[in-house]
Amino acid sequence: MERTELNILGEFGLIDRIASQSQIHNPTTIKGIGDDAAVVVADHGYQLLSSELLIEGVHFDLGYVPLKHLGYKVVVAGISDILAMNGTPKQITINIGLSNRFSVEAIDELYAGIFAACEDYEVELVGGDTTSSRSGLILSISAIGTVETEKITYRKGANANDIICVTGDLGGAYLGLQILEREKKVFLEAPEAQPVLTGHEYVLQRQLKPDARLDIIKQLRELNIVPTSMIDVSDGLASELRHLAAESGLGVRVFEEQIPIHQKSYLAATELKLGPFTAALNGGEDYELLFTIRQEDYQKILDHTTDISFIGFMSSDPTEAFFITKQNEAVPLTAQGWEK
Amino acid sequence: MERTELNILGEFGLIDRIASQSQIHNPTTIKGIGDDAAVVVADHGYQLLSSELLIEGVHFDLGYVPLKHLGYKVVVAGISDILAMNGTPKQITINIGLSNRFSVEAIDELYAGIFAACEDYEVELVGGDTTSSRSGLILSISAIGTVETEKITYRKGANANDIICVTGDLGGAYLGLQILEREKKVFLEAPEAQPVLTGHEYVLQRQLKPDARLDIIKQLRELNIVPTSMIDVSDGLASELRHLAAESGLGVRVFEEQIPIHQKSYLAATELKLGPFTAALNGGEDYELLFTIRQEDYQKILDHTTDISFIGFMSSDPTEAFFITKQNEAVPLTAQGWEK
Repeated sequence: MERTELNILGEFGLIDRIASQSQIHNPTTIKGIGDDAAVVVADHGYQLLSSELLIEGVHFDLGYVPLKHLGYKVVVAGISDILAMNGTPKQITINIGLSNRFSVEAIDELYAGIFAACEDYEVELVGGDTTSSRSGLILSISAIGTVETEKITYRKGANANDIICVTGDLGGAYLGLQILEREKKVFLEAPEAQPVLTGHEYVLQRQLKPDARLDIIKQLRELNIVPTSMIDVSDGLASELRHLAAESGLGVRVFEEQIPIHQKSYLAATELKLGPFTAALNGGEDYELLFTIRQEDYQKILDHTTDISFIGFMSSDPTEAFFITKQNEAVPLTAQGWEK
Repeated sequence: MERTELNILGEFGLIDRIASQSQIHNPTTIKGIGDDAAVVVADHGYQLLSSELLIEGVHFDLGYVPLKHLGYKVVVAGISDILAMNGTPKQITINIGLSNRFSVEAIDELYAGIFAACEDYEVELVGGDTTSSRSGLILSISAIGTVETEKITYRKGANANDIICVTGDLGGAYLGLQILEREKKVFLEAPEAQPVLTGHEYVLQRQLKPDARLDIIKQLRELNIVPTSMIDVSDGLASELRHLAAESGLGVRVFEEQIPIHQKSYLAATELKLGPFTAALNGGEDYELLFTIRQEDYQKILDHTTDISFIGFMSSDPTEAFFITKQNEAVPLTAQGWEK
């Protein structure tokens, strides 16, 4: 039998390969594989279904991630995909694989975080499977949500000259992770040393307890604005921009100086000798929303919302995928999945 | 901080502990944790949501499980919980964690099994997460389905004297697993030996490619019979009977000689020096349906269906949980979860 290494396909290649074989049997299925969430018909609109898998040693390191924060973050990761369809998350299920290494108190901590997030985002845990795992902790979350038919927002749908918006600020979660990794290394080399985390509370919070932007979805609804396309920033801005562009058959032009980066992220980046802009482009795990709006909605957002930045435009030329540096140079955006 | 070992709680204790902390925020949530699937309101009825986690080395051994069969079985495990609510499965998502040990061809085999099951059970794969895993293969499935409001069947709802029914036959999947384990041991001791599987095709198929009983749900609908309670047999008959009894506040009395056991299961049990009845009671993974019906529906089922056995009665005394042996002795049913 032939053997093709998985890394030749890459994550997105693998997803495309699976998606191309999937067949629709039920008329209630509106959209299957290939967006932030699946879309099925429900009462008064569409029902959305999304799913995420988090594995110890791959997605989190219990050496420095408190279980309560991990529980909170799993829920954020799960519902962020529902928000990215302009939907309201409603219910979640969590599957958990764990070894005897974990005590009941440890599991309680994890679920305390899960329930805190359920409270904050007005969703409920309605089920899930618990099982033993031989190695580390495994968490799988599925979320369902609803959206009015005329308000659903796919990755596809942007038009040329639509304005590209992003919420909050970017790169912080990645920089927080680098601070934690640095201190872990110090600790492993000299266990008596105390971790130096002071001054980095902001980026640490971005990594350990991110927010899902339900608030932005609510604001957009109040302003009666439906984005023309949307995705959540879980893999880094560059990758997400390329998704929106590819799905809409357009190009993108974004301006480096418009990318929102927190001053505490600049501080952490300087200390770590990393580029803050690179962290924003390729870092991931920010769980902010990236979306496009019609030109006529610009003023409404400017006047009535906070925490939304305008970072560029959709271009009619699908071969164009650039960011414009402060020195006015056009640099190609390169996406990075789990190949990196 | 206190430390309570997980095995003190056990699987069901852990689920109860989590369920007791869960709060409902959305009026569309009808039933959360604690049945085969969660229940949320949808168009013309309820929407059902269920979830399963399967981990290599815990739930399956790729040493003898072909990936295609594993893919098929994952879907069966996922939708069986929807059927157990008397629902029709509609969509599934599958999260997959895999290492570079797997080639693209291997993943294609896995998905060939997944799509074969989608075809057989008229469901579609609508999404899921793909990620890397440092150790083995991890599969998490979520399924959604629908059911008319008046036809939903919970674990709770049986009445005293309702007849207990079970589909197909029991114990085969467990005995198939024991045959595979025996041959694996032989192979490890003498790799040049050929596995002796001839004559055991039936129990091997029960283990490797089980069926979900969509056919029975369709039959019951045609006969206009709504079971009073139902559960799928994934952990063994004894455990499932105790669930139905406890949820309905009743006892159960089942008759050993009525338990459906295939002649090929008897054959395998004899060869393995195992009790076929014990395999049926405690084996698990049969994915048959266990349900209760009103006395007045008995004749209809007898006349118009095949592959349903009547194995006993619900008793008004909740302390009664017995099976009656062929020697007319009453023996208490003991449940086994993952403590075993």
